[in-house]
Amino acid sequence: MPASPIRKLVPYAEAAKKRGVKVYHLNIGQPDIETPKMALDAVRNFDFKVLEYSHSAGNESYRKKLSAYYKRAGMDIDYQQIIVTTGGSEAILFAFMSCLDAGDEVIIPEPFYANYNGFAVSAGVVVKPLTSYIDKGFSLPPVAEFEKLIGPRTRGIMICNPNNPTGYLYSREEMETLRQLILKHDLYLFADEAYRDFCYTGEHIASLNLKGVEDRVVMIDTISKRYSACGGRIGALVTRNQDLLDTVLKFAQARLSPPSFAQILGEAATDLPADYFDATKAEYLKRRDVLVSRLNAIPGVFCPNPGGAFYAMASLPVDDTDKFCQWILESFSYDNQTVMLAPAGGFYGTPGLGQKEIRLAYVLNTDALHKAMDCLEKALEKYPGKI
Amino acid sequence: MPASPIRKLVPYAEAAKKRGVKVYHLNIGQPDIETPKMALDAVRNFDFKVLEYSHSAGNESYRKKLSAYYKRAGMDIDYQQIIVTTGGSEAILFAFMSCLDAGDEVIIPEPFYANYNGFAVSAGVVVKPLTSYIDKGFSLPPVAEFEKLIGPRTRGIMICNPNNPTGYLYSREEMETLRQLILKHDLYLFADEAYRDFCYTGEHIASLNLKGVEDRVVMIDTISKRYSACGGRIGALVTRNQDLLDTVLKFAQARLSPPSFAQILGEAATDLPADYFDATKAEYLKRRDVLVSRLNAIPGVFCPNPGGAFYAMASLPVDDTDKFCQWILESFSYDNQTVMLAPAGGFYGTPGLGQKEIRLAYVLNTDALHKAMDCLEKALEKYPGKI
Repeated sequence: MPASPIRKLVPYAEAAKKRGVKVYHLNIGQPDIETPKMALDAVRNFDFKVLEYSHSAGNESYRKKLSAYYKRAGMDIDYQQIIVTTGGSEAILFAFMSCLDAGDEVIIPEPFYANYNGFAVSAGVVVKPLTSYIDKGFSLPPVAEFEKLIGPRTRGIMICNPNNPTGYLYSREEMETLRQLILKHDLYLFADEAYRDFCYTGEHIASLNLKGVEDRVVMIDTISKRYSACGGRIGALVTRNQDLLDTVLKFAQARLSPPSFAQILGEAATDLPADYFDATKAEYLKRRDVLVSRLNAIPGVFCPNPGGAFYAMASLPVDDTDKFCQWILESFSYDNQTVMLAPAGGFYGTPGLGQKEIRLAYVLNTDALHKAMDCLEKALEKYPGKI
Repeated sequence: MPASPIRKLVPYAEAAKKRGVKVYHLNIGQPDIETPKMALDAVRNFDFKVLEYSHSAGNESYRKKLSAYYKRAGMDIDYQQIIVTTGGSEAILFAFMSCLDAGDEVIIPEPFYANYNGFAVSAGVVVKPLTSYIDKGFSLPPVAEFEKLIGPRTRGIMICNPNNPTGYLYSREEMETLRQLILKHDLYLFADEAYRDFCYTGEHIASLNLKGVEDRVVMIDTISKRYSACGGRIGALVTRNQDLLDTVLKFAQARLSPPSFAQILGEAATDLPADYFDATKAEYLKRRDVLVSRLNAIPGVFCPNPGGAFYAMASLPVDDTDKFCQWILESFSYDNQTVMLAPAGGFYGTPGLGQKEIRLAYVLNTDALHKAMDCLEKALEKYPGKI
C-alpha cells in the first residue's frame, strides 16, 4: 500500500504553524463551504432510539430520493440501481473488486486522484496510467494512445469527470470517444462523478447517459463535495448492470451497512431547492477566476483554466515541486504567511512526471486566495531552485 | 465473494409477514437494547457547521477516550495504538490486508462469523477452518489439531471472543494455548472482541494482555454491540505493533476517514458510568437463561450454555436445518406466529458441517423469546423431516 503523497509535507506545515506562521491550505479538497443547515438539522432531529444497521444497499427511502436527484440531473436511474456506500472510496473499491480479478488492468488518464492507487492495490488491480498533458489542458489522450495500452488483461478505463486533480471537464466528443472505446474493446467505464455539480465552463456529460454501453458503465458518486459533507462518509455506486449490482451487494452485505446518520443527511439534502448549487457554484467560479488569473500573471507559471471541480494544476518555473513545496513551508514566509501546495508527482502513475507541477484546491475564500497567491509570487522570486 | 448465508431466507420471512404471520427474528445480531440516550444526544447537540473529514486514524479526542476505556477494562493501550475504523468490519479487512499477502492462510475455529469469509476473499486470504464441536460446547480445538493445519503459508489465527456464533467464552488456559501457538509458529492472533462487555459465566481474557506476544496481537473492536450502535459504523483496530500501525494507517488514509457523526457518539459513550453494562448484561443473562432452558427442554434439542455474547447454537432433531428453517417460515405457524432462525451451515467453512445446527441471537425480550420457543417446540412436533 503506497503512502499518501500529500501527507509527507504535513510535518513541515505543522512546524511552520508552531513558528507562528499562518499557512493557507490549498493542498486538500476539504471545502470550507458550510454543510446545508437543513441537512445537518435532519440529523440533529432524528427520533429513533436504537441506532440500527441500515439495509446493506442503503435505506430504501434514501435510494428513492437519490433516484429522483439523478432524474432531475437528467439520468434515468431506478433506486434499485443504486447501492449506497461508505463514501465514494468504498464505491471505487467495490467497483474494482466486483469487476476485476487480481492482475487485471485498468487504464487511468494521469494525473489522477492518488487514492485510486490505494484501492487498486487493495483489489490486486494493476493501474496503467495514460499521460494527459498540461499544455493541452489535460484533455483526453488520443484513442491511439489508449489502444497502445489495451491488452488481454485490460478490463476497464477509469475517469474522474470533472477531474480531480486537474479540474478538466470532458467534452461530449471525448465522452463519445470513451463510449466507442469501451464498446470496441469490451471494457468497463468507471466514472467518478464526485464533482458533477461543480461545472463552470461547459456541460457535464453523464457517463450513465452514454447509449449502447449501459451494462458497462459504473458511476461513482458521493455527497462529500456536493453538500460539503466529507465526514459523513456516504457515497454510491450506480450501474444498470444487474449482475454487477448482485455482486456489489455481496460486498455490501459483508460489511453490513453504510453509516446511518449521514444517510439521513444525504436524504434531507436531496430536498434542497434547484438553485442551491447556484450560490456555491458562483462562489467557486469567483475563486477559480482569482486563482487562475493570479497564477498566470506570475512569470513562468502556467495554469490551464479548469472547467469544473475545485482544483487546478499549474506548472512552476522550479527544479522540483517536491522540493519547492517543502521549502515554501520550511524556509519561507511573507508577511508571516505561507501556503501549502500539493506537488503533482503523487498524482502521476509514471515515475518522474509532474515534477514541475502543483495541484491547488480553491477551497478558501477569494481574500485568502489572494494572500496565498501573494505568498507564491514572492516565494518564486526567492526560491533558490528557480529555473 | 460468497453470498450471505442468512439472507437467502429473507424472501420466505417476507412472504410469511405478507400472509399476516408474526415472525420472531432470532436470526440476526441486531440488538433491541436502546442506544444510550446521552450518546445519541451528543450527536443531536453537535454544533459544527462543516461536516469535515476527521483524521484518518479517527479523532484524537475519541482515541484518547477509547484508550481510557481500555485502561478501565484492564488493557494498557495508548491512543496512538488505536486506529478508528468504519465498523469492526473494516478493522478485519485492514488487519487481513496489512498482515497477509494474497494466498496466505489464516486458521479460524469453526463455526465462525460468516463475514470473515467475505473479508478473506476481499484480501485474497485463504481461510483454514478448524472444527470445534457442539458436544464440547465449542471449546478451543486441541493444539495438535491446529498444528496439523499450520503450513508455510499460515500467517495467523483468528478468534472471536466471546464467540459469534457460538457464544463460547475462551478460558485463561485456552488463551494461554493460543499465546504459545502464535509464539512457536510466528503467527498473528486476530482477536475479534466485539462482545467483550457481554460475559456471563467466567472472565474475559483480553488478547492484548497476553505476555511476550505484544507484536503479534491485533484486536478488533466495535461500538456496534457494546452501545447498541450498529448503524454508526465505528470500530477500531488496536495493536502494539508499530510497523503494523504504520501500514494500517496507509489503508486508513486511502479511504480518508471513518464516519464523523458516530465518532461523536462513541466518544460520548465512553463517559457512561461503570455500572452501565450491569443492566444490559442482566437483561441478556435473563434472556440467555430462558432461551437455553427452553431449548434443552425440547426433546432431541441440545444447546450448550454460552458464556458470553448474545448467541447460542443448538442441534435439532431434523434432517437438515437449511430445510427446516425454510419450512418453519414457509409452511408453519402457531397462533399465527413463527420464528426466523439461522441454519448453521453458513458458519462452517467445511462443507456439510452444521446441517443439524442452528444459531439463535437472543436479541428479543423474554416474552418474545418464550413465544418464539413455543413456535420452535410445536414446529419440531410437526416437521416432516424430523429424525
